[in-house]
Amino acid sequence: MSEFELIARYFAPLARSAPGAYGLLDDAAVISPSSGSELVAKTDTIVAGIDFPPDTAPDLIARKALRVNLSDLAAKGARPRAYLLDLVLPPATDEAWFAAFAAGLAADQNEYGVTLIGGDMSSTSGPVVVAVTALGEAPVGRIIRRGGARAGDLVFVTGTIGDASLGLRALQGKFPALDAESTGFLLERYQLPRPRVSLGPQLIGIATASIDVSDGLIADLRHLCSVCGLDATIAAHSVPLSDAARTLIDGHAETLAAALTGGDDYELLFTAPQAAFDRLSELARATDVPITRIGQLAAPTDPERPRMLVLDAQRRPLDFASGGWAHF
Amino acid sequence: MSEFELIARYFAPLARSAPGAYGLLDDAAVISPSSGSELVAKTDTIVAGIDFPPDTAPDLIARKALRVNLSDLAAKGARPRAYLLDLVLPPATDEAWFAAFAAGLAADQNEYGVTLIGGDMSSTSGPVVVAVTALGEAPVGRIIRRGGARAGDLVFVTGTIGDASLGLRALQGKFPALDAESTGFLLERYQLPRPRVSLGPQLIGIATASIDVSDGLIADLRHLCSVCGLDATIAAHSVPLSDAARTLIDGHAETLAAALTGGDDYELLFTAPQAAFDRLSELARATDVPITRIGQLAAPTDPERPRMLVLDAQRRPLDFASGGWAHF
Repeated sequence: MSEFELIARYFAPLARSAPGAYGLLDDAAVISPSSGSELVAKTDTIVAGIDFPPDTAPDLIARKALRVNLSDLAAKGARPRAYLLDLVLPPATDEAWFAAFAAGLAADQNEYGVTLIGGDMSSTSGPVVVAVTALGEAPVGRIIRRGGARAGDLVFVTGTIGDASLGLRALQGKFPALDAESTGFLLERYQLPRPRVSLGPQLIGIATASIDVSDGLIADLRHLCSVCGLDATIAAHSVPLSDAARTLIDGHAETLAAALTGGDDYELLFTAPQAAFDRLSELARATDVPITRIGQLAAPTDPERPRMLVLDAQRRPLDFASGGWAHF
Repeated sequence: MSEFELIARYFAPLARSAPGAYGLLDDAAVISPSSGSELVAKTDTIVAGIDFPPDTAPDLIARKALRVNLSDLAAKGARPRAYLLDLVLPPATDEAWFAAFAAGLAADQNEYGVTLIGGDMSSTSGPVVVAVTALGEAPVGRIIRRGGARAGDLVFVTGTIGDASLGLRALQGKFPALDAESTGFLLERYQLPRPRVSLGPQLIGIATASIDVSDGLIADLRHLCSVCGLDATIAAHSVPLSDAARTLIDGHAETLAAALTGGDDYELLFTAPQAAFDRLSELARATDVPITRIGQLAAPTDPERPRMLVLDAQRRPLDFASGGWAHF
């Protein structure tokens, strides 16, 4: 089956609801923000053997590639609209792979209200690479930046932290004693992130700064502090954990470190003034997304080097050798 | 040097002139079309060993990755504005590589008035992959589609055809007798496409259909005919050739076939009514871009199967076994 037949059969149907995608039969797509909005653009790539195990089911690869981008849009308060897809595959990739991959995209388009508007396919002698560029929109000038926090703002995180990195370890056979249900839960958290697409736009006007947790809670909070020029103090015992993660971490400091520094959570890490606490509680109830206060920002002790303090239950500082995932 | 240091040193300077890129320090960028315009989005990936030889200089890789996308925008009549970049590299990639790659981008940003607004970097065990998503803009509803041609419209092409594919063959040592100057010319045409960025937007209101020549003249004209539902007749001897290509092709039917079916020309292939002939001649003079009439479209003999006829100087049909480049 040729590239053009593959596009016609598996990808053109995904572009049907976007008139500006021209059925993927033209050289480019057109898109405009709604009145009063601007477009928000983000690109993120996943690579087999680095971001997912090479034997991952194609539908999960597709969904992860899309979702990691939607997570960034959510962190900015942007509503997702469209995406472009670059697919780099071994030439022997069979039609069943494309069918499953496209089915994964179709499921997520339905779930998140987003539409394929363009793409490219290439062959490679190396691992599968999937690059997605997602386009969302937000009211003009209102996206939630990384750098808008003020001293005294509280630090919040959605959902639970560490499940994905523990899921990867479970996949590697590191927790043989863990029950099947917990193992399955952690695995799914690693394979299928749940970007906070509905909550994100509702944080506009409440959150002062925001980032999604992809490199790891500690590393991403450090990114935020660094752009804000503020110190942060986090209470490790207040970081929300799933039951499965809590079981694994109980009494294992190294596993706690893995949870707090491991990546792939795709939760939102954001700051808001104390006065916003009640509104956030209401929002958590209304959206059914847990929002947990985990710490607070302060004026920097050294403006050149924003400091991050992670305290244990006895308020002793914890030290994390690894600050988060780095490619290079 | 970490990913973050590499971004700060080599890529953030490329984003300086786009306020919505936030110095590449945020999770996403914002962009809006100018008043009366809409955004035009295109993504294209190049892979080492497929789209360029693995030992290609990094600045040429960067420029080719960007230019193949700008060529598509030009074909639609869109003016380029911004791009996002996905870079998938072996972990051992050294700093000099990044420096040269970024220098290539800087040169082309300057040449084409386009700015980096976001990107992602990943490591790989395989070949270098560079995916670019380019964003341009065009007056609302006015991009030049692939499918707008009418029976009787003339077929035009810019520049010269076949140089890039002959350049690749030269790189493979297939033309040892060719003089150094011609070899250098063809090599550069392969390594450094010249997208018709200035001409493209000026074809709005003149061209009825347009596509850029990337898969090969024959294949891309077939794409256009297929979307338009029209037959095309092309005079092979009227296809514009460079002196270097003409020397190689003279008396070699196989080399002519290579030129007409080889890809990577990145010229514009477009249609316009006969009445537009004079305006196109003026435009060619004003922009210093050769525009050559190579054929004409006609009502289809079989609407289900648009037919493409390529005639030699004696008006005998030529047959091309290979219709163009295909990845799968």
